[in-house]
Amino acid sequence: MKTSCLLDKVNSPSDLKKMTDEELVMLAWEIRRQIVDTVAKNGGHLASNLGVVELTIAIHSVFDCPDDKIIWDVGHQSYAHKILTGRRDAIGTIRKENGISGFPKRSESKYDCFDTGHSSTSVSAALGIACAEDMKKSDAYTVAVIGDGALSGGLAYEGLNNAGRSGRNLIVILNDNKMSISQNVGSMAKYLSKMRIQPGYLEAKTKMHRLEKVPVIGRPVTSGMKHVKDWMRDDFFGQRGNIFTQLGFAYYGPYDGHDIAQLRTALNAARHKHSPVLIHVCTKKGKGYGYAEKNPKNFHGVSAFNIETGEPKTTSQGFSDVFGKSMCTLAAKDKRICAITAAMSIGTGLSTFSKKYRDRFYDVGIAEEHAVTFAAGLASDGMIPVFAVYSTFLQRSYDQILHDAALQKLHIVLAIDRAGIVGEDGETHQGIYDVAFLNTMPNVTVYAPSSFSELEAALIKAISNTEGVAAVRYPRGGQQYLPADYHPDNQPYTIYGDEQADTLIVTYGREFSQVCLAKEGLSKQGIEVCILKLNTIVPIPAGAVLKAGSFENVYFFEEGIRNGGAGEKFGFELYQSGFKGKYSLTAINGIVTQARTDSALHKTGLDSEMIEKKIINDPCVGGRINGGKKKT
Amino acid sequence: MKTSCLLDKVNSPSDLKKMTDEELVMLAWEIRRQIVDTVAKNGGHLASNLGVVELTIAIHSVFDCPDDKIIWDVGHQSYAHKILTGRRDAIGTIRKENGISGFPKRSESKYDCFDTGHSSTSVSAALGIACAEDMKKSDAYTVAVIGDGALSGGLAYEGLNNAGRSGRNLIVILNDNKMSISQNVGSMAKYLSKMRIQPGYLEAKTKMHRLEKVPVIGRPVTSGMKHVKDWMRDDFFGQRGNIFTQLGFAYYGPYDGHDIAQLRTALNAARHKHSPVLIHVCTKKGKGYGYAEKNPKNFHGVSAFNIETGEPKTTSQGFSDVFGKSMCTLAAKDKRICAITAAMSIGTGLSTFSKKYRDRFYDVGIAEEHAVTFAAGLASDGMIPVFAVYSTFLQRSYDQILHDAALQKLHIVLAIDRAGIVGEDGETHQGIYDVAFLNTMPNVTVYAPSSFSELEAALIKAISNTEGVAAVRYPRGGQQYLPADYHPDNQPYTIYGDEQADTLIVTYGREFSQVCLAKEGLSKQGIEVCILKLNTIVPIPAGAVLKAGSFENVYFFEEGIRNGGAGEKFGFELYQSGFKGKYSLTAINGIVTQARTDSALHKTGLDSEMIEKKIINDPCVGGRINGGKKKT
Repeated sequence: MKTSCLLDKVNSPSDLKKMTDEELVMLAWEIRRQIVDTVAKNGGHLASNLGVVELTIAIHSVFDCPDDKIIWDVGHQSYAHKILTGRRDAIGTIRKENGISGFPKRSESKYDCFDTGHSSTSVSAALGIACAEDMKKSDAYTVAVIGDGALSGGLAYEGLNNAGRSGRNLIVILNDNKMSISQNVGSMAKYLSKMRIQPGYLEAKTKMHRLEKVPVIGRPVTSGMKHVKDWMRDDFFGQRGNIFTQLGFAYYGPYDGHDIAQLRTALNAARHKHSPVLIHVCTKKGKGYGYAEKNPKNFHGVSAFNIETGEPKTTSQGFSDVFGKSMCTLAAKDKRICAITAAMSIGTGLSTFSKKYRDRFYDVGIAEEHAVTFAAGLASDGMIPVFAVYSTFLQRSYDQILHDAALQKLHIVLAIDRAGIVGEDGETHQGIYDVAFLNTMPNVTVYAPSSFSELEAALIKAISNTEGVAAVRYPRGGQQYLPADYHPDNQPYTIYGDEQADTLIVTYGREFSQVCLAKEGLSKQGIEVCILKLNTIVPIPAGAVLKAGSFENVYFFEEGIRNGGAGEKFGFELYQSGFKGKYSLTAINGIVTQARTDSALHKTGLDSEMIEKKIINDPCVGGRINGGKKKT
Repeated sequence: MKTSCLLDKVNSPSDLKKMTDEELVMLAWEIRRQIVDTVAKNGGHLASNLGVVELTIAIHSVFDCPDDKIIWDVGHQSYAHKILTGRRDAIGTIRKENGISGFPKRSESKYDCFDTGHSSTSVSAALGIACAEDMKKSDAYTVAVIGDGALSGGLAYEGLNNAGRSGRNLIVILNDNKMSISQNVGSMAKYLSKMRIQPGYLEAKTKMHRLEKVPVIGRPVTSGMKHVKDWMRDDFFGQRGNIFTQLGFAYYGPYDGHDIAQLRTALNAARHKHSPVLIHVCTKKGKGYGYAEKNPKNFHGVSAFNIETGEPKTTSQGFSDVFGKSMCTLAAKDKRICAITAAMSIGTGLSTFSKKYRDRFYDVGIAEEHAVTFAAGLASDGMIPVFAVYSTFLQRSYDQILHDAALQKLHIVLAIDRAGIVGEDGETHQGIYDVAFLNTMPNVTVYAPSSFSELEAALIKAISNTEGVAAVRYPRGGQQYLPADYHPDNQPYTIYGDEQADTLIVTYGREFSQVCLAKEGLSKQGIEVCILKLNTIVPIPAGAVLKAGSFENVYFFEEGIRNGGAGEKFGFELYQSGFKGKYSLTAINGIVTQARTDSALHKTGLDSEMIEKKIINDPCVGGRINGGKKKT
């Protein structure tokens, strides 16, 4: 829906330099409209994108990209940047298969200079780029845009600690919206809230309120917005003593992040500094879309929704909900159970727990390393901590799991959400590495439930009946197809189907559903296969390997990476046990690009159709007519 | 050598409470003597231990351990703590096989409440313990002792950010000795140096200088040391605005960390606060041993040395030196080459580079996550960054390698020092996981040289002829035995020995030496084996698997973990290629406890003796007399 006219004039960011301040303000609302329309259709990150529209315009109207480099921390707020850097027409394809990414991608545009996706990386990457530019004797600017939520990540602090003293030509824009994904936590958040109430900022804020109406989608009155206060001058604000100046940055701010003229003045001042500057910008998450402003948590990352009502188009119970409910039930019985989240109380299903058991609920902010070591501390002193975390973010805690928990054989529980393919977020967010990297550690057990009831059982086992690090991994979304005659036994592995078949399919987790569907499809074609579902995936149950050895053909389908994954391990153990049959492994080769989960499963050979095809086309199996009973 | 008498009175820390301040001061020098004697014999961490003797005494004379919990960050400074908590007689066994550990170990003593080894974990763990104590309605104290070096690690900041606002009964002691392992870097270090020059601290410092002589080993005059200044009172110092108060801590300090009476008063004040307190203590690394005071970097971690001269008992060229020299040679030819270290410029051999190529040398402090993302930033803008890091610390950057470099296929080089078994540092420091965890990532290549010349060749290949993440891994110490007729070809794999043999041994890295020795031993017993040395270990070269398939018996000896390691992978690929022979894998099962490297290799079945034994005892090989030529 192209209702705009100003946007038509923007073919590259340099076109912004020709516009008046008033036009830039109008442009912001056109962009905002396009973002809401797009996300309502495609799903994606909404609130954070709406919050930085003016900031993005201001940046591109002051700096000269792609010579100057902008690094978007996390990158989920880069939609306006994409619209302004030649991808406006493609924005409808965002997060779709073969479309543009919901995050910056170097492969997509020369304006994206560093790929992001995980939080808190921007300052480190920006410092690297700034140093490289220095070595090249370039006078280009490097700008990192980082949210206050991302600032709770230790990596951001490491970056600031190095950047501040570097003397490099580096500008860090702190996009302070008072939120991580949930409400922000920790001392830094409290500290920023103090900084926000400084007189200068309040003055500008009041002015904004007078000038601006916030309709569901609307346009503000724009007159009188271009005057910037004297108090924003470097020589006054740059000297104030605060945590950022103490870390070696000149500090400018706080500024109203929705006042383009103010922002432009601040950015221009920073441009002339030629040493590390931190610009503190206050924005409103969800700005301009009433529902998102009122409930930014729920509009952080969304599925497609109805613009008029703000309601999601589909809702259904997911694994996260079941996890959250189970946690409440279990915590009622055992006072040692605590829950930890890294800014993901809603996403991981812990909202109810957080209210019901406030004393035992810890939101540590975006700080996955701390979350694990903190859990280890709790465990060392008799508690049973459960850290609920998306698989992709657990990667950040590799050493903490190994060094602080596993080596000490401390009993912490990892509730690994979004395990497996996650869909449209794409390669940076796939939960496909956890089985492989947890497998490298001693004293770790990983359970892989396929259904809600199995998740409940696995969680009980992890909490009450496992030593060392106990992980339960489950996928994004809801329970998938399960045959009516499948009865979970919650043993280390489950056999489903005719054990007299000569062909066995081994799998675990969500992939079990695809394998069951394939089994039914094969059966219709006269081929019976048996299924071995691993419920414990690390370590591989010895009995499962023994059982598999009695089949002639063993297939392993794994919704996870091949290298170091369970399929390789299982195959190795199987061969070592003396197996002389055929072993075929289908797993993921490292990277899965953005696509709906069903399509990604298809492309990686993991949906029921591809499983069937693989087995049918196998001369050992599909070629035979008798349906493949074991040779006697 | 027991020359002391005061130490004889200390059977548990509670005995300190009976001593006068003067006695405590004397005690410090007895402990110091014991530490120097011990480390001179056994090797270990010297400078950091000498720096905290008074602090340790003060802590144990004020708190009631084991009810109160002390967490030593890194833990390499816990020798005095061990001496005071019932392990004085065992101190001579420190870092030796079956002896006490050089780090805190819960399994060793009830006074060690959390195992440490890697840096920056203490605040997070302490907060976990403090929360657990709260839940148990206990009024015990939790104390984290963390160095200013460890404070450059993001995990410490994540911990402080969470702890400061928690309101918990938590005391963080900042042991500020102006050093990481090398000289401290970054803005925080600069900031602390400013805090140190506050008037109060200087006054105490001057007093100390008047009172104290610092002989090689000596005892200070102790009179007049027990008066504590008014300015140290909570109500004055706790309110001062600094980075710690901004993070929610009450701040006390800075104090002279060698004045026990001062320290005791400060600790007692903190005890009565019942909310997060940070006590800033200034200590001198190496205190009391002249050589270590003068050169604390070189006396951070040491081998056995001569007390009178301060000279190490043995020195020889190691892989780190060769790496450092190669880097200088390569950097002269290519201006894009940069070197990064995380506070390990000496340990990784980069001292010369750091002086010769100052503009291209980055010591980022103890901040391995930042180091990798920073490297990715450099690489994204055309540089060739080489991050030299010990294997065990690279674990901390799992997500940064995967998410910030590998997924983007950015060309960064990882120079992985201390790969494999490291000896006396024990389980927290073993470099045995890197091959397995790097194998889980796409776009990663790992080279495993066995000799100095191979390291040079691998480094050139990694820098100039590899896409994506290129890692070169090499062991601690020097080059091991190599047969005279072994000629490195620097191909992905090298065959050494008679290809007509029916038995093949596959290995990589340092383990090649042991395998060669075993080959010679076996030969003397009439058994010829061939060796396949993998020079590229991730990914496994396809040709190597093919070649191995032509043998009847294939052994893999891996100085690394079994789960997810190269041996499993190689075996799996070999079987998949149709191999029907015998495949036997010897690798490490997760944990290697402290012992000399040769002993650890023996215990894990990886020294030449065990390799020989394994093959001799194998009925497929050793049972035969003809030396095992291939069947024709």
